Amino acid sequence: MFKAIVSAETLTSALDSISVLVDECKIHLEEDGLEIRAVDPANVGMVDLSLDASAFESYEADGGLIGVDLSRLEDIASMAESGQLVQLELDEETRKLQIQIEGLEYTLALIDPDSIRQEPDIPDLDLPAEVILEGKDVNRSVKAADMVSDHIALGVDEGEEYFYVDAEGDTDDVHLELTEADLIDLQVGPAHSLFSLDYLKDMNKAIPSDTEVTLHLGEEFPVKIYFGFAEGQGQVTYMLAPRIQSD
Amino acid sequence: MFKAIVSAETLTSALDSISVLVDECKIHLEEDGLEIRAVDPANVGMVDLSLDASAFESYEADGGLIGVDLSRLEDIASMAESGQLVQLELDEETRKLQIQIEGLEYTLALIDPDSIRQEPDIPDLDLPAEVILEGKDVNRSVKAADMVSDHIALGVDEGEEYFYVDAEGDTDDVHLELTEADLIDLQVGPAHSLFSLDYLKDMNKAIPSDTEVTLHLGEEFPVKIYFGFAEGQGQVTYMLAPRIQSD
Amino acid sequence: MFKAIVSAETLTSALDSISVLVDECKIHLEEDGLEIRAVDPANVGMVDLSLDASAFESYEADGGLIGVDLSRLEDIASMAESGQLVQLELDEETRKLQIQIEGLEYTLALIDPDSIRQEPDIPDLDLPAEVILEGKDVNRSVKAADMVSDHIALGVDEGEEYFYVDAEGDTDDVHLELTEADLIDLQVGPAHSLFSLDYLKDMNKAIPSDTEVTLHLGEEFPVKIYFGFAEGQGQVTYMLAPRIQSD
Repeated sequence: MFKAIVSAETLTSALDSISVLVDECKIHLEEDGLEIRAVDPANVGMVDLSLDASAFESYEADGGLIGVDLSRLEDIASMAESGQLVQLELDEETRKLQIQIEGLEYTLALIDPDSIRQEPDIPDLDLPAEVILEGKDVNRSVKAADMVSDHIALGVDEGEEYFYVDAEGDTDDVHLELTEADLIDLQVGPAHSLFSLDYLKDMNKAIPSDTEVTLHLGEEFPVKIYFGFAEGQGQVTYMLAPRIQSD
Repeated sequence: MFKAIVSAETLTSALDSISVLVDECKIHLEEDGLEIRAVDPANVGMVDLSLDASAFESYEADGGLIGVDLSRLEDIASMAESGQLVQLELDEETRKLQIQIEGLEYTLALIDPDSIRQEPDIPDLDLPAEVILEGKDVNRSVKAADMVSDHIALGVDEGEEYFYVDAEGDTDDVHLELTEADLIDLQVGPAHSLFSLDYLKDMNKAIPSDTEVTLHLGEEFPVKIYFGFAEGQGQVTYMLAPRIQSD
Repeated sequence: MFKAIVSAETLTSALDSISVLVDECKIHLEEDGLEIRAVDPANVGMVDLSLDASAFESYEADGGLIGVDLSRLEDIASMAESGQLVQLELDEETRKLQIQIEGLEYTLALIDPDSIRQEPDIPDLDLPAEVILEGKDVNRSVKAADMVSDHIALGVDEGEEYFYVDAEGDTDDVHLELTEADLIDLQVGPAHSLFSLDYLKDMNKAIPSDTEVTLHLGEEFPVKIYFGFAEGQGQVTYMLAPRIQSD
């Protein structure tokens, strides 16, 4: 059983943060909210999303599991005008999702969850450095690095106490330093890792520019990127594996 | 003889509602205004437009006939800024149209009307159902159907008294119901017909979202779509032939 | 030695007015400001730009010469938000340009000036007619001519005292007349020359619509196009060679 009403904005935010990594996903319809975990085909980027029942206008579920085509669901949500509500209801018999937006009914065929790539186990890493910054600074870092390279290094200078972004191109280099004054918060620790810029660009697309974003970093370790949405009732964590540095 | 001055907005509205169906058209320069009728190459969609002399700042004509390339004329009209006037004058000797916009003169070669597809006789059908709705609801119907199918069914439920839109895809379906409360007016009658979505999408492009649109519908009959422009001094009627329903 | 701080807007205006003609250019780092001259590969369009030291927040230079990739430098300048400053500093040892924008450091490899096409000697022509008009009227002239032709004639009618634009297509013609009332100023003189529209379209891209533009014209002579930017502390002069008229 699943029946829920949610604002189009909240639904779209949730879907967009998954669809930057995968085309299809499994959605766990838990009693206390939705849970989604997914990993990209190359096993490099993972996402873990939860959307609490309190983020919905109304929410009823009993632990089911459905598989959805994300771009389909995003198209439907885009039919809603600002402020309109989206009603979702699972038809257990036909295994279709009934979606209603102000008189418009959409019957969405679901995907067999067993046909969707297995959900990742997101490792519980103890990363030594923590950087809290605004979404627009993540965007700026990614855009700057993209001018010169396909890779981006993220790190923390423990002595000088700043977070940095480095990108080295064939001829040009980019270096960005954000001190505690530029950041919302900084917990220094040994941290320097290289990442594929393509993944970070995709993840960045889902990060609102005015959102508080938390990065957890280590030395040649994955980065964990956390941000909330739907007034904190939705949580997204990305994890991106590092690239081995070429010297 | 033909000499007229008209706002760029009015001229553009008139041209756009024809150009969604055909590239070239004949324009009748009647004493009391312009008349245009055209049918697409497949004989599926027709348009009948009249623009009264009162929609012009000044208007003089004596029943001539010209053939025009619509995209050319639209390009010229797009040179006008908001609020600017367009002056049109037919040079009988050269068979060219002199167009003036604030010091800019454009000499447009006309097309031999005999080389343009014959104008359709638009049948005077007596269609039993009438639906009056806002342009934005036409847009919403077309967009929703387009997510799942190439066809769209329009109909009226006589018992429950509502207008509906249906589209059936391979896996997903769309259904939209608009009751009298959602509509401007509804005259119920037996009505259910299937149409090619491509044509309706094209016609929809010419319908302003804040305009009152009247649909005349029957059972497996064409739909007539009527709307006014230029403060009611321009009238557009589209007629779209139905598709035979496949069961 | 070169070290300067300038608003992103001023830097972008300067770069854009050069990059419409060439991909790379030499920049003279004079004591009293920057000087750039360039000619397109076909030797048809030239540009001469100066940006006075007073247009900078701070400026120090001693007559050096650097070669730059314009699209690179434009990309970097586009990283600045409105109102942000760009700091430029030449590293004499590495021959790289250090560019800083609010904590972001970009190290730009320079191009060997000797590998860049030789700078043109811009002839000091004594052209008899002068037309001063708004940038938006240059834009309108170019757009109108582009509807019918690849060429554009610019001239002055000495008897009737107006500036005109002519373009002749295979079937359609465009003619625009701007009298003294439409212009900022007009010095009549014998003037009528034909130009390639492609070049004028490119130059037009760099001309702000609300800028005062001065045209110097003659009979089958080049046109000189002058406009200022950065509150008059930057000056751009384009020179465009005429096309021989075909009769």
